[in-house]
Amino acid sequence: MGKNILIGLSGGPSVAINASLAGIISAAKLAMTEKGAIEKIYGAKNGVDGVLNRNIIDLEPYSDEKSLKLLEQTPAMALGSCRKKLSEEDFPKIAEIFEEYGIGIFCYIGGNDSMDTVLKLDRYFKSQDIKINVIGVPKTIDNDLPVTDHTPGYGSAAKYIYVTMSEIIRDSAIYPVKSVTIVEVMGRDSGWLTLAAGLPRFLGGKAPHIIALPEAPFDEKAFIKRVNKLLTTENYVICAVSEGVRTSAGDYVGQGTKSGAVDTFGHTYLSGVGKYLEGLVAREIGCKVRSVELNVMQRCSSHLASKTDIKEAVMVGAKAVEAALLGRTGVMMVLTRSDKKPYSCSVSTTDVSNVALKAKDVPPSWIDVETRAAQDAILEYLLPLIKGEPYPLRDETGLPIFLVIE
Amino acid sequence: MGKNILIGLSGGPSVAINASLAGIISAAKLAMTEKGAIEKIYGAKNGVDGVLNRNIIDLEPYSDEKSLKLLEQTPAMALGSCRKKLSEEDFPKIAEIFEEYGIGIFCYIGGNDSMDTVLKLDRYFKSQDIKINVIGVPKTIDNDLPVTDHTPGYGSAAKYIYVTMSEIIRDSAIYPVKSVTIVEVMGRDSGWLTLAAGLPRFLGGKAPHIIALPEAPFDEKAFIKRVNKLLTTENYVICAVSEGVRTSAGDYVGQGTKSGAVDTFGHTYLSGVGKYLEGLVAREIGCKVRSVELNVMQRCSSHLASKTDIKEAVMVGAKAVEAALLGRTGVMMVLTRSDKKPYSCSVSTTDVSNVALKAKDVPPSWIDVETRAAQDAILEYLLPLIKGEPYPLRDETGLPIFLVIE
Repeated sequence: MGKNILIGLSGGPSVAINASLAGIISAAKLAMTEKGAIEKIYGAKNGVDGVLNRNIIDLEPYSDEKSLKLLEQTPAMALGSCRKKLSEEDFPKIAEIFEEYGIGIFCYIGGNDSMDTVLKLDRYFKSQDIKINVIGVPKTIDNDLPVTDHTPGYGSAAKYIYVTMSEIIRDSAIYPVKSVTIVEVMGRDSGWLTLAAGLPRFLGGKAPHIIALPEAPFDEKAFIKRVNKLLTTENYVICAVSEGVRTSAGDYVGQGTKSGAVDTFGHTYLSGVGKYLEGLVAREIGCKVRSVELNVMQRCSSHLASKTDIKEAVMVGAKAVEAALLGRTGVMMVLTRSDKKPYSCSVSTTDVSNVALKAKDVPPSWIDVETRAAQDAILEYLLPLIKGEPYPLRDETGLPIFLVIE
Repeated sequence: MGKNILIGLSGGPSVAINASLAGIISAAKLAMTEKGAIEKIYGAKNGVDGVLNRNIIDLEPYSDEKSLKLLEQTPAMALGSCRKKLSEEDFPKIAEIFEEYGIGIFCYIGGNDSMDTVLKLDRYFKSQDIKINVIGVPKTIDNDLPVTDHTPGYGSAAKYIYVTMSEIIRDSAIYPVKSVTIVEVMGRDSGWLTLAAGLPRFLGGKAPHIIALPEAPFDEKAFIKRVNKLLTTENYVICAVSEGVRTSAGDYVGQGTKSGAVDTFGHTYLSGVGKYLEGLVAREIGCKVRSVELNVMQRCSSHLASKTDIKEAVMVGAKAVEAALLGRTGVMMVLTRSDKKPYSCSVSTTDVSNVALKAKDVPPSWIDVETRAAQDAILEYLLPLIKGEPYPLRDETGLPIFLVIE
């Protein structure tokens, strides 16, 4: 067993992934200097793709305090990403390359699909009696990983959506003509992010008037009827709609207008339910209508990160190194919320088979967001996660600065 | 001549309009309490529309320090807006209503079209020997008003575009497959906002690789050729494209796919050049391609406001009251940049006929953004305008709070 650690990043970006990377590097550096438990800190460019291509770099030059602080506030994925699904013949190749680099710990930061990679790699290593600790570090803005209370990246995305939604509501309120604004929020299968779009209303406002989650079937006729009814009393109607809303038959709304392309994990590429509903409102109601797609800004707006989210992302990364050094493997790091107030979370592990390729939906009792009970439960869950300003380091022009790993 | 002041807001929103409103209220309150020069501070809901409908409210309840501070950080238009073009029969009605409310000063915050309203109202009052001081207060994220160095609202919009563009660049850089990202920026006729999207490159980065302003003819074949060439050396290509880019024949790019609707001032509604170019790249090149429309977030993201912009917006509003009390009328407030370093601006007035319905394009020498000389000139112009964080007041959940005028 080697004494080197390798880190890889996989799946879609968020503003907290690099914070977890910084946490791993920081804890590995500590283990290196204090106990000699780790000798080298490697990073794989573009996840397992980079491992297979031996695109592996030394991360020690980025392990000073200043670099780690910058890494924490850098959005996206400083080591790049991949969406590779490993095939059977990849495993022995990876084992060979790991041996070549003396890898004893492999930390893989990612979502459901990446945890499947962690699971398979760990099983392969065990089957071959190879002693490598494989640890999954959760991240996804979608918040759809089971077991963990929430995923690093979700809080910051939720904060972006909430703040931007509040601003869009002010923007939509200015004209004395009736208008409809459709805001399309990410979330292919679960409505966690769309819940965040509802915060301005749950906290006492009128808007968004309609909140549509993928967990509840979407009926176009009922939607138009409801918008029409709202327009009799409201000057502007705001709708927060998940990109993944489906009809009762299970088809994505407006699917006919979409590309139908699928990614390597078989997920359909989505875009345009906002534009689709904009067209529907224009045809069926004929009032002023606009759609806004929050798009990649939901996952890359580090300037609006949640301090809580970034802190937890760092902590989860650091604890992953500790878990590996304690001999854990085939596990994913998990955030567990304390029952006590004020809010706090502890970090532990779960067998990665509890997580891989599984999804966590919004709880059934929260799906009808029109009920006060659901709104209160959502507020209690969500508000602590978006809390705190990280006030990022800025350059002389006053703009946030990033760390770029070449 | 009445001793009351009336304020109206018109045209599209920005994050600095309410700051100008706060500046006007603050200066009017001072004139009220110190010199008795003003008796009442009125606000017209929805601009001249609200004047004609006597939808006029007392703003004194919002003149305390806390309310004004909140107003400064509230995006959009706290008194609502309109897009009304006054007709001949409106003028005597407005004069009658102004007399009824004892209005001696009318401050109208808006862009080119609103300055046309200021011009016509002032001419009508003069022709009728009515002593009302009509003052135009400039605002537009488009920065296309002549005479003034820049318009309040532009700096904050530019800051949002710059910061978000920097984040989108990080987001686009993560995958090992060739990709093209098209970012659509507001600006119907001028490229001021799209220049801000270029900042990450002008400051030394590689992206955005292509910057397309409405001032330069856009050739689809040349665009595809250039993207193809860039893709031979770059993994990801980022294009910042103004919504108003046109062909050499003067047609909006992708116009065939648009609605063709026009607003009350005869401007064509635009949307979708990003989506259009996304489709073009998909068809002609076939690589991974995405379009991002920065949409209304460009004009309502108060959480990313420029402190310089907000300060100047307040100052311009306050100086408008002073100018009126000194007897000026039929003028627009103007920001003049000092020749000396560091950056500073003074406020004066220009005859509103120099501004009304006129537009200021990006200087010809800046249009070829590929030249270092243009980039340096743009940096010198733009960087001071986006500078400084306003660090807005937040509620107990840590989120920025707004002032809502009912």
